[in-house]
Amino acid sequence: MPQPTFDVCAIGNAIVDIIAEADDAFLRTHKIDKGVMTLIDAKRADFLYDKIGPAIETSGGSVANSVAGIAALGGKPAYIGKVKDDQLGKIFGHDLRSTGVHFATPALSADPTLNAPPTARCMILVTPDAQRSMNTYLGASVELTAADIDPELIHQAQITYLEGYLFDKPTAQAAFRLAAQVAHAGGKKLALTLSDPFCVERHREAFLDLIRNDVDILFANEHELMALFRSISFESALATARTLCETVVGTRSDKGAVIACGDATATIAAEPVAEVVDTTGAGDLFAAGMLFGLTHGHSTEESGRLGAIAAAEIISHYGPRPQHSLKELARAKGIRV
Amino acid sequence: MPQPTFDVCAIGNAIVDIIAEADDAFLRTHKIDKGVMTLIDAKRADFLYDKIGPAIETSGGSVANSVAGIAALGGKPAYIGKVKDDQLGKIFGHDLRSTGVHFATPALSADPTLNAPPTARCMILVTPDAQRSMNTYLGASVELTAADIDPELIHQAQITYLEGYLFDKPTAQAAFRLAAQVAHAGGKKLALTLSDPFCVERHREAFLDLIRNDVDILFANEHELMALFRSISFESALATARTLCETVVGTRSDKGAVIACGDATATIAAEPVAEVVDTTGAGDLFAAGMLFGLTHGHSTEESGRLGAIAAAEIISHYGPRPQHSLKELARAKGIRV
Repeated sequence: MPQPTFDVCAIGNAIVDIIAEADDAFLRTHKIDKGVMTLIDAKRADFLYDKIGPAIETSGGSVANSVAGIAALGGKPAYIGKVKDDQLGKIFGHDLRSTGVHFATPALSADPTLNAPPTARCMILVTPDAQRSMNTYLGASVELTAADIDPELIHQAQITYLEGYLFDKPTAQAAFRLAAQVAHAGGKKLALTLSDPFCVERHREAFLDLIRNDVDILFANEHELMALFRSISFESALATARTLCETVVGTRSDKGAVIACGDATATIAAEPVAEVVDTTGAGDLFAAGMLFGLTHGHSTEESGRLGAIAAAEIISHYGPRPQHSLKELARAKGIRV
Repeated sequence: MPQPTFDVCAIGNAIVDIIAEADDAFLRTHKIDKGVMTLIDAKRADFLYDKIGPAIETSGGSVANSVAGIAALGGKPAYIGKVKDDQLGKIFGHDLRSTGVHFATPALSADPTLNAPPTARCMILVTPDAQRSMNTYLGASVELTAADIDPELIHQAQITYLEGYLFDKPTAQAAFRLAAQVAHAGGKKLALTLSDPFCVERHREAFLDLIRNDVDILFANEHELMALFRSISFESALATARTLCETVVGTRSDKGAVIACGDATATIAAEPVAEVVDTTGAGDLFAAGMLFGLTHGHSTEESGRLGAIAAAEIISHYGPRPQHSLKELARAKGIRV
């Protein structure tokens, strides 16, 4: 049997981030929920964009950030996601491909008579405490359908990694089910990130169904995991989760992460950071390190440490893509990558 | 006579910056001239964009950066420049307006049957030595014509500030001549930045003609000033320039700036910077501080110091827009703004 060509094939919301600073008063005035992702429609997107200050644009999207991180560690990732053939879509495709990620999902046509929604964008408001409050207009990203799932890509990847945010559209859920089927038929692993506690609230049953039947590796932060099982503690949520999945990766911000793998439990300390500037992408990059480790023969602990190192890099500056060599950072900590 | 509503009305190339890191080998491989602005066509823009690494997008354009800086200092600037009604055009307009700049130039229509060029973009490659090499596709920005010059805006501004880069198109030169006429008819001042030594080479006679007849305040770095007069030294170029303009502001990177105003000469030291990250916008922000000072009753020396403080802030991070309060920085240096 030939070796898989890709470490990870991620399927996610293809989103351009619009990052601006804001204070708590701004969030209150405009009724923006702090620290979470809120879905907004085109009208609200235009309204908020009018109100926010100067911004920078950069390609984002949770699992797109993860595969960019895997590429930065020297891995070979692929990505499936939907943009429109507009300026933001071109920027998204350029940035992702230039990090070394294989990305070939056909874009929605820009033909004005077809009236396709534009490339998705997420306004990320960063408060002085480095928390980010996200307002996402999903646009083209949720037009992903089963037709976009290239079975050949899934077959070629050791792990297929799904973004929970895509659960917000039934056609995208169908694409997930197809991807899960193809992955398991080829003897490959399926990973899922829950993405957001409110996303979990919106789709608890669908998530639980997928997790029970298909997910081998579950990524979630403590809020998401507790929301999934309506648990009153992280520990009890983790105890339930580990009965359903081979590997559960629970991230806990500055408290690090806990990885439950069969009967074993690994506790990973957060890496020290001189100054936390913007926590955008912390979970995404933890997943990047973890998935890179798991697909490159590293132990669970070492994979977790790679995740913590990548997460620490990303929160020390604005934006969800590494600005320093993750390879060098890992090597400086004694990990052979 | 009523007070002018605006301190400065700037007329410039409305450009979105695409900022990426690159090394010297990359510049050599792709024959990119280091440290200067090179005009490129749509084909070359697509080619280079394919080759560069992950980038961030942010609104730029030389004198647009300056008016954003004036707004950051508490001034009231206006801007005239041309974008298309496309995604990058919307981003440009949003960012400039959100800094507090009045910007109401009609955008080129996005109607596909009209086939208007897209919003201009500049690929800025930042090398490890913090130098930036710019590759500009002018697109919509040079479609500015005399019809876009709102005489009312010019009348309402104490100083009208022109961007040399716009000399690359005859219709834009005609717009400049109209703006100069309107400004002087209203008893207002005209300022010009030479923008780039190659721009000066391309349009020496047109620049000299405008400077002799219309320019009150000339901004230039030492390379531009020497190119303008084909001088072998900065000192001799400055000596010639001061015979033509009321005020000549010659900037000299880490050597600071020299301001010739009539018979007086003020030498301004560069402000110390902990780490120079990206010199994009240094000249633009020097002009911002200087123009703010001149329109707010500060002396030539103090105006120059405001310029040096604003320039020092901008080179300490990526991107051409301030990330710290210029007002607070100026106050910390004992300047009342």
